[in-house]
Amino acid sequence: MNERTGSEGTRLSSGKRTKMSVPRATATARLNNDWSVAKGARPQNPGVWRTATLTDNRRATNCAGASFHHHRPPRPRGTPPRPGSPRPLPARPALLPAGNMALCEAASSLYWPRVLLFGDSITQFSFQQGGWGASLADKLVRKCDVLNRGFSGYNTRWAKIILPRLIKKGTGLDSPVAVTIFFGANDSALKDENPKQHVPLDEYVANLKSMVCYLKSVDVPEHRIVLISPPPLCEAAWERECLAQGCKLNRRNLVVGEYAGACLQVARDCGTDVLDLWTLMQKDGQDFSSFLSDGLHLSPDGNEFLFSHLWPLIEKKVSSLPLLLPYWRDVAEAKPELSLLGDGDH
Amino acid sequence: MNERTGSEGTRLSSGKRTKMSVPRATATARLNNDWSVAKGARPQNPGVWRTATLTDNRRATNCAGASFHHHRPPRPRGTPPRPGSPRPLPARPALLPAGNMALCEAASSLYWPRVLLFGDSITQFSFQQGGWGASLADKLVRKCDVLNRGFSGYNTRWAKIILPRLIKKGTGLDSPVAVTIFFGANDSALKDENPKQHVPLDEYVANLKSMVCYLKSVDVPEHRIVLISPPPLCEAAWERECLAQGCKLNRRNLVVGEYAGACLQVARDCGTDVLDLWTLMQKDGQDFSSFLSDGLHLSPDGNEFLFSHLWPLIEKKVSSLPLLLPYWRDVAEAKPELSLLGDGDH
Repeated sequence: MNERTGSEGTRLSSGKRTKMSVPRATATARLNNDWSVAKGARPQNPGVWRTATLTDNRRATNCAGASFHHHRPPRPRGTPPRPGSPRPLPARPALLPAGNMALCEAASSLYWPRVLLFGDSITQFSFQQGGWGASLADKLVRKCDVLNRGFSGYNTRWAKIILPRLIKKGTGLDSPVAVTIFFGANDSALKDENPKQHVPLDEYVANLKSMVCYLKSVDVPEHRIVLISPPPLCEAAWERECLAQGCKLNRRNLVVGEYAGACLQVARDCGTDVLDLWTLMQKDGQDFSSFLSDGLHLSPDGNEFLFSHLWPLIEKKVSSLPLLLPYWRDVAEAKPELSLLGDGDH
Repeated sequence: MNERTGSEGTRLSSGKRTKMSVPRATATARLNNDWSVAKGARPQNPGVWRTATLTDNRRATNCAGASFHHHRPPRPRGTPPRPGSPRPLPARPALLPAGNMALCEAASSLYWPRVLLFGDSITQFSFQQGGWGASLADKLVRKCDVLNRGFSGYNTRWAKIILPRLIKKGTGLDSPVAVTIFFGANDSALKDENPKQHVPLDEYVANLKSMVCYLKSVDVPEHRIVLISPPPLCEAAWERECLAQGCKLNRRNLVVGEYAGACLQVARDCGTDVLDLWTLMQKDGQDFSSFLSDGLHLSPDGNEFLFSHLWPLIEKKVSSLPLLLPYWRDVAEAKPELSLLGDGDH
């Protein structure tokens, strides 16, 4: 039998378009013309350092793996471990006892990096079927966790207050590798119709800046942050929702646009990445109603649109993360613990 | 304007079947005949303790909220905080300064409970579109994180080695509220055709028991664990995959069934919950091929099937978790920090 084919896991690296993977892949195929990104790439061999990148992974699915194994470069003294590195492994006996507890003692904790999605209901719902958060989590599997910190109905005034409860200053190693800040859909509600959620434009700007500033103070520098503007509002559809609830239309697309513009400006002022969803979804006067389910929240098409534009920004931030734990074909058959208990970095 | 209607977030509690929520809801509608579970429930009022349960949530979407607010019961001295509780809040000044840093100092960290999904590729792929892991994450949003610890191609021999790198003994508070252990699809590969992944039945049993034993040693008792058996194998479809890769069929459904039976027995012996997917998917001689994408991995239908059977088991384990941070309508408008910085438990 050909050892590299025909067993479970092969589907990952074959680059085939399976029934299951097609819909998700569709979202990103535009970007990279590749159906098997981040799936089945051959990560490091045991004992060999490899700075895996998503670009590497793509190549790895098409080429023999050997060229992607780089000898581990020296790390200058005093510099922090690479993202994704576990705590340093204590000296390990050459031959491990077979017992579980002995393995436990020998095994170093594997640190799993995190991406935080901070926002309102459009973030909270992002793991629904076809949701952009779930797409990110799938794309980043074996690289980092994607944590949903979406709070339906919240505006930046409230977000600013809770952010310090969600992210504290840590050791540096455990600070998130990327954070999305995605508010504005509630801030931009009309003051007269929805005073509880409305936040004035000036305060929205100040709150966004304050959150970026706070993140920097807890070791999340601006280059790890992506601000996302609210999507455009389909007034006709949202008005139907409002009327069904017995009230008047409480948001206007042009007003939302002012908040989106302000979000863009904050990103420029602070040096963060930004995704101006409001502008992108209306580009060239296209009909954006299919991107929304009820005029305000994202439809499956809208989720796919957001993901396809967000992914390149996130990819930049996670490109240095290795796949966590060896590709199964690289596990040493006779002594798997030699592969699986790491070489100090994996 | 009716303050309780027509603004962002309303969609959550309206119980309406929106375009976005229908497919996900379908998976669970069989179970609870409710389209809005865990969405838009009204959690605790500020300053009032509430032990929110998913059952409460369901009722809350249909009834007035007042009856779900219980006065906080006293906690005996020396007992650990409830799951989902943040670190104790230090004494907070009655009136908070407006500055962000001051808020930061006053805010206690909010601990986010975790569910761990530990398994092979069927777990690793569980955040693909319609995947059972993403469904769990969506269902448990604002209650806990659902972390993907799936390792494509791995068997229990390797899983046993890496488990201590994934979960260490913690403070009790931070141990996972639920763990799924879902292996067997690779262990049950035929020894002659796939010696690398094959694990003998006796060793599979011992490895599963060893992992349950390890989890108990790090404060994850058996009642938080769900063993999941491998699904049945559609030999015709999987043989096509194998032949396309130039090798012979390397798994047999009857052999997989032996591993599923052993998994069931381990669960009985150890006192954990179990989901015998192999048996459930073949119940009453039904055609199970639609549950599989390539004969081995789950199709969208298979993901939905797994989720619909897993959810009741997970629901039991997370029923005491509160929704994290207040429902937006409960945030005090004039002084939101009073709602958002907690009363010591929220």
